[in-house]
Amino acid sequence: MMDDIDIKIIEMLNEDGRLNNNEIARRLSVSEGTVRNRIKKLNDSSVLKVTGLINPDLMPEKQLFLLGVRIAASKDLTRTAEMISNLKGVLSVYITTGRYDLMVEVWLPVKHGLIDFIGGPMSTIDGVVSTESFLAMKSLKKWIAESE
Amino acid sequence: MMDDIDIKIIEMLNEDGRLNNNEIARRLSVSEGTVRNRIKKLNDSSVLKVTGLINPDLMPEKQLFLLGVRIAASKDLTRTAEMISNLKGVLSVYITTGRYDLMVEVWLPVKHGLIDFIGGPMSTIDGVVSTESFLAMKSLKKWIAESE
Amino acid sequence: MMDDIDIKIIEMLNEDGRLNNNEIARRLSVSEGTVRNRIKKLNDSSVLKVTGLINPDLMPEKQLFLLGVRIAASKDLTRTAEMISNLKGVLSVYITTGRYDLMVEVWLPVKHGLIDFIGGPMSTIDGVVSTESFLAMKSLKKWIAESE
Amino acid sequence: MMDDIDIKIIEMLNEDGRLNNNEIARRLSVSEGTVRNRIKKLNDSSVLKVTGLINPDLMPEKQLFLLGVRIAASKDLTRTAEMISNLKGVLSVYITTGRYDLMVEVWLPVKHGLIDFIGGPMSTIDGVVSTESFLAMKSLKKWIAESE
Amino acid sequence: MMDDIDIKIIEMLNEDGRLNNNEIARRLSVSEGTVRNRIKKLNDSSVLKVTGLINPDLMPEKQLFLLGVRIAASKDLTRTAEMISNLKGVLSVYITTGRYDLMVEVWLPVKHGLIDFIGGPMSTIDGVVSTESFLAMKSLKKWIAESE
Amino acid sequence: MMDDIDIKIIEMLNEDGRLNNNEIARRLSVSEGTVRNRIKKLNDSSVLKVTGLINPDLMPEKQLFLLGVRIAASKDLTRTAEMISNLKGVLSVYITTGRYDLMVEVWLPVKHGLIDFIGGPMSTIDGVVSTESFLAMKSLKKWIAESE
Amino acid sequence: MMDDIDIKIIEMLNEDGRLNNNEIARRLSVSEGTVRNRIKKLNDSSVLKVTGLINPDLMPEKQLFLLGVRIAASKDLTRTAEMISNLKGVLSVYITTGRYDLMVEVWLPVKHGLIDFIGGPMSTIDGVVSTESFLAMKSLKKWIAESE
Amino acid sequence: MMDDIDIKIIEMLNEDGRLNNNEIARRLSVSEGTVRNRIKKLNDSSVLKVTGLINPDLMPEKQLFLLGVRIAASKDLTRTAEMISNLKGVLSVYITTGRYDLMVEVWLPVKHGLIDFIGGPMSTIDGVVSTESFLAMKSLKKWIAESE
Repeated sequence: MMDDIDIKIIEMLNEDGRLNNNEIARRLSVSEGTVRNRIKKLNDSSVLKVTGLINPDLMPEKQLFLLGVRIAASKDLTRTAEMISNLKGVLSVYITTGRYDLMVEVWLPVKHGLIDFIGGPMSTIDGVVSTESFLAMKSLKKWIAESE
Repeated sequence: MMDDIDIKIIEMLNEDGRLNNNEIARRLSVSEGTVRNRIKKLNDSSVLKVTGLINPDLMPEKQLFLLGVRIAASKDLTRTAEMISNLKGVLSVYITTGRYDLMVEVWLPVKHGLIDFIGGPMSTIDGVVSTESFLAMKSLKKWIAESE
Repeated sequence: MMDDIDIKIIEMLNEDGRLNNNEIARRLSVSEGTVRNRIKKLNDSSVLKVTGLINPDLMPEKQLFLLGVRIAASKDLTRTAEMISNLKGVLSVYITTGRYDLMVEVWLPVKHGLIDFIGGPMSTIDGVVSTESFLAMKSLKKWIAESE
Repeated sequence: MMDDIDIKIIEMLNEDGRLNNNEIARRLSVSEGTVRNRIKKLNDSSVLKVTGLINPDLMPEKQLFLLGVRIAASKDLTRTAEMISNLKGVLSVYITTGRYDLMVEVWLPVKHGLIDFIGGPMSTIDGVVSTESFLAMKSLKKWIAESE
Repeated sequence: MMDDIDIKIIEMLNEDGRLNNNEIARRLSVSEGTVRNRIKKLNDSSVLKVTGLINPDLMPEKQLFLLGVRIAASKDLTRTAEMISNLKGVLSVYITTGRYDLMVEVWLPVKHGLIDFIGGPMSTIDGVVSTESFLAMKSLKKWIAESE
Repeated sequence: MMDDIDIKIIEMLNEDGRLNNNEIARRLSVSEGTVRNRIKKLNDSSVLKVTGLINPDLMPEKQLFLLGVRIAASKDLTRTAEMISNLKGVLSVYITTGRYDLMVEVWLPVKHGLIDFIGGPMSTIDGVVSTESFLAMKSLKKWIAESE
Repeated sequence: MMDDIDIKIIEMLNEDGRLNNNEIARRLSVSEGTVRNRIKKLNDSSVLKVTGLINPDLMPEKQLFLLGVRIAASKDLTRTAEMISNLKGVLSVYITTGRYDLMVEVWLPVKHGLIDFIGGPMSTIDGVVSTESFLAMKSLKKWIAESE
Repeated sequence: MMDDIDIKIIEMLNEDGRLNNNEIARRLSVSEGTVRNRIKKLNDSSVLKVTGLINPDLMPEKQLFLLGVRIAASKDLTRTAEMISNLKGVLSVYITTGRYDLMVEVWLPVKHGLIDFIGGPMSTIDGVVSTESFLAMKSLKKWIAESE
């Protein structure tokens, strides 16, 4: 589906998301229009997203948690995962094999952020049986989309 | 440390990492040079990174795994986490509270990718006591830096 | 219940299920009719089944999972196991001692097969409290009855 | 790799492994030689195996166990799995994600069969950290290759 | 509450429950009437019980299981334990600290005894949340009151 | 191996271990010598043991614990179980399926009895990986051989 | 919020809660009135509490337990924790990350204190899913507020 | 060992550790000297300690953690507990029944305090097999001796 030019554009933008189209075009020996079109198509098909991320370890007022969540056997995993992914503070949700049904990354204010999240938005999600939380005390190679 | 202009620039770039400096300057009623300088400073201080990310659910040949890792009590958690973060296929590493010492995100070829990772690079890390793996069968709001 | 001839027939057919009755008869120095009758009786009493099996590791489009299932204490284990054994994709079911009440082998399409199974057929089974899944990334000495 | 004729032959043999080549040929409107060749090729490439299986629930003198096995992080999972698969009594071995590294099916004499297996053959395998056993008290849709 | 004579009588009867009163009296230099009275009092106050026990490892048709049972938080542990202790096959029940609320010893017919117990008598006990079973494959220094 | 008379003698002695031979003989319409011989044979073959037991809940100075013990995979389970069964305070030992390798019943002084047992006799047993203890706060239908 | 004088007063009172105000004033070279005011303010703002504590290991008639408690996902953690903290025998309650939702310290009569607590006051708290108890057989550096 | 006057003094000091001896004497209708002597004796015998405690939830720069610690089976639990109780940051240590061998309360700087504790002082303690941490996000009725 993706050709070599797509893959190279993705690699360059992964390296530096601010690289301008002309420079990309120059390196690939294609026209600026080609680069612009390719990026637009990759964006529109949800394959690529160029975004500004922040370093969570430098934000003293927020903390990253992983939540292992068990869902009632009678509930639809995908729909429950979608509802959780829309809660304020949720960075991403995985449907997983193993001990938990879902793994959820949340980015919450220090001190009572997690208590407020579990007792607030999370408690409105039907079918959550239990939540086991892991505080990420330190993270490596982790970048976060703050506004999510 | 960050002022309002920094925060607004981060928010705009989080929304669209390709937004050009002139447009950002216009929206904030500051000069293009100010925007350029601010972005450079945020980059240099490891607060901000603008990058192209891909959607893991659209890449059929790779799979995302979370690994819960236990480290021997006599080992340095931070150094072990750093060594693991440098292994090929590792997206990020957290030092966590709870049942595991580390949580590791890995992005590996389908079929035998995880067996090869555990039996290969991971087996060279001293002090790993056990690894419990979770396959992310589906992910929501997850974007991955392919080249990592 | 089974005599020596039965046992030897079973061993030969286990070795090669396509061995013809004449050859078996020759090796055992009995008549072909005896062999035919014995196989029929072993079949009819559900002791023996001769069947064509496939190698799961060579089928790229399907995956083998083991599910550890907990059943509500008020439910009949045998009936629940039977209902699960009839679901599409289920290879076999064991009622076990230990941490789980049932162990279920399922053979499902790659990517979303397990999510669809848990959210679909499995969610209709009354009394399932939780399901912990294990993906068989590689299998040794495992042969599967595809059409089951 | 497999065409429609291969798939239909596999399905027929799965239904009845004793079906003779002439009958298969007749149903598929191909020659007996084609059927014979196809079965031989499927066999030689380890895709298909036609075999006589027994019903474990009718064998009072043996019991089926599942073993969840953890392997030391420094050991090669594939090699350890292969060594275990060659032990007397082992039906099959899976390398799995999740709480265990391997799942092993064993078929052992009642009473002390498992104690003898763990204290005997299994104790010779280097790198086994722990074994958690599950007795299959009843099994559904399970057929076993006795001689293995 | 108990004096030295009581304690010595208990020790002798523990050594050999068939020792007759005259012999006990002779060894303790007390009258046979004293021994008879003391044993009666120890019996009546539920301190002592002299009983014939069998060796479970020599009874091929029955198996000993330990069940770790979790009870709903709203249920009375003592009453639930009493109800379980009256079920046919139950040898003893402990209310415990830790991972389980109750530990139950059961003595059941081989093959399907445990499935029948869990699906039968045990399933009538209100408030049982889960049961984790341990088969005693071999026992040391264990004697059982068969008729219980 | 045992006939009806053996079984009835065992049942009567289980009911009341002090029942004298003449009374048993009268009820079974056999001679006193037959009863005496049968009991002796059952004793000598380790099938039957008549013994005085005490009620643990009435002994304030001792406590009953269950220990779930994990043994190193390279160790002989039966030998390790035997060594543990000979430690002072051990009532019985089971080799079990499931989460633990052994279950051990111990009868120990209140307060520091368990700490002294684990740090003392138990710590001398080679191959013990871990011990998880359960205090029996209350027991039903449990009788204990004090002197063991 | 607290200045150096506050911190030094707290340190002295932590060392010896009976130290009188004059002595504290003398050591800090401030007036007795200052000391009195500061202590009153620290008390009124719930920062400091001077209290008499007892050594639990010297109280033979009571035992300290830790309870790991799981709360239903739909319940308010803070309110449930508050209700539990008001139960007779509860020393303190923590809302925690990890395997349990709450950790509760209780100080209860020996023998049946915990059974009575779980079956009594604790069973009235709505939303408790399970309780796993840990008996503190020995404690170091632990002082308890008896009347709580 | 303690009489009614001792118990009442303890209760008054538990209520208010700053209550002066004269007031206690007046309420109990005994002399001030009696009160002074009794408090001294209770102190000297390690039964009573009057101390200034702080409220952990009002200290933003530190966090309370509970650690469930497993100790190697060959190690002396009491000695290991004592060594851990002397580490900087440790508030108290319990030797417990159940899933962990020790429970440790630690009071550590926010962000990296626990990583530094586990990788620093704790890593020097011989025989620690694993540590599972629980962050106390909120605490009720909990008062801490800061200087410990």
